[in-house]
Amino acid sequence: MKKRLGPSPTIFPMPAVLVGTYNDDGTANAMTAAWAAACCHSPPCLGVAVRSTRLTFANIQRQKAFTINVPKTTLAVEVDYLGIVSGARRPDKLEHIDMGTTSGALVDAPLIDVCPVNVECRLFKSLELGTHTWFVGEVMEIHANGELVREDGKIDVPSLDPLAYSTSVGEYWSMGESIGGAYDIGKELKQRK
Amino acid sequence: MKKRLGPSPTIFPMPAVLVGTYNDDGTANAMTAAWAAACCHSPPCLGVAVRSTRLTFANIQRQKAFTINVPKTTLAVEVDYLGIVSGARRPDKLEHIDMGTTSGALVDAPLIDVCPVNVECRLFKSLELGTHTWFVGEVMEIHANGELVREDGKIDVPSLDPLAYSTSVGEYWSMGESIGGAYDIGKELKQRK
Repeated sequence: MKKRLGPSPTIFPMPAVLVGTYNDDGTANAMTAAWAAACCHSPPCLGVAVRSTRLTFANIQRQKAFTINVPKTTLAVEVDYLGIVSGARRPDKLEHIDMGTTSGALVDAPLIDVCPVNVECRLFKSLELGTHTWFVGEVMEIHANGELVREDGKIDVPSLDPLAYSTSVGEYWSMGESIGGAYDIGKELKQRK
Repeated sequence: MKKRLGPSPTIFPMPAVLVGTYNDDGTANAMTAAWAAACCHSPPCLGVAVRSTRLTFANIQRQKAFTINVPKTTLAVEVDYLGIVSGARRPDKLEHIDMGTTSGALVDAPLIDVCPVNVECRLFKSLELGTHTWFVGEVMEIHANGELVREDGKIDVPSLDPLAYSTSVGEYWSMGESIGGAYDIGKELKQRK
């Protein structure tokens, strides 16, 4: 028997990532975001929801660029800190926790060094929704720790050990194990009967 | 040392969900989607990327409604089947795997009965990006299996056992374990030094 819970933006799981931008004085900023997703194959795009009150919101609009940085589970405390503390109140929030950055190769946004995967995005489109705006960036380049990159050029998920987020309960989660390949494990049902 | 991998829509993890819509003859359709996210707090919104060639694309545009259905890991094979098989070629794809549906309470889209969480969305806005369009639905109602709902009204993630997706390698994944609460575990770093 199902219960009706009323409306809220509920979906499982979400990624917990860091959105990197430059402030107007050129210092690097990072904001934790869990409401982010791949959203187009060609051009390759990532989207992220940002509240209009956040410093990151103004930074993306001004710089027309941002990075999506994928942390390991071992960075959960730092990730949470970067979601609690506003860059508007504490412009040195990255320095405070000794997080270094490197300039993007192709866009005007910082790569968070400690994150094993950094995605450079050029602001492509945006959609105002209410409290949040959905910013869509065209992916221009991906940087990944060499030891995570498999021979086929793909990122090895167990080695990456990415951080997931559960919106409803507000908790960070690790990933479990692989259950099977897409466009593969469902083939058997095509043949059924 | 980081390697440059070139552009692709890479972010970890994504949710593997079923998008429910009605076809023009009133039969229920479901398409697997991993490119989906919460994207606004108020109004509460979920977004999903749908390729323009999919039957779901036409269905959302016509019905102005869709559901996001969260499967358990035990449904991975069925989820993959619903991503492989097109409703355009096989209008009975849900019947073929004995998946029943119930009409939405507030929107004109089907709830996939076997999924423990069903979210009813009214099409709110959309953003054409290229191969894919980002459809944003305002969440009108959530239905959840009673045994998943905690005393505080939130959905218990371990009991839900949702299905994650790794875009880069194209694999379904289970969730691991809780690492800590958001807006909580990072507080210690605020006090540092």
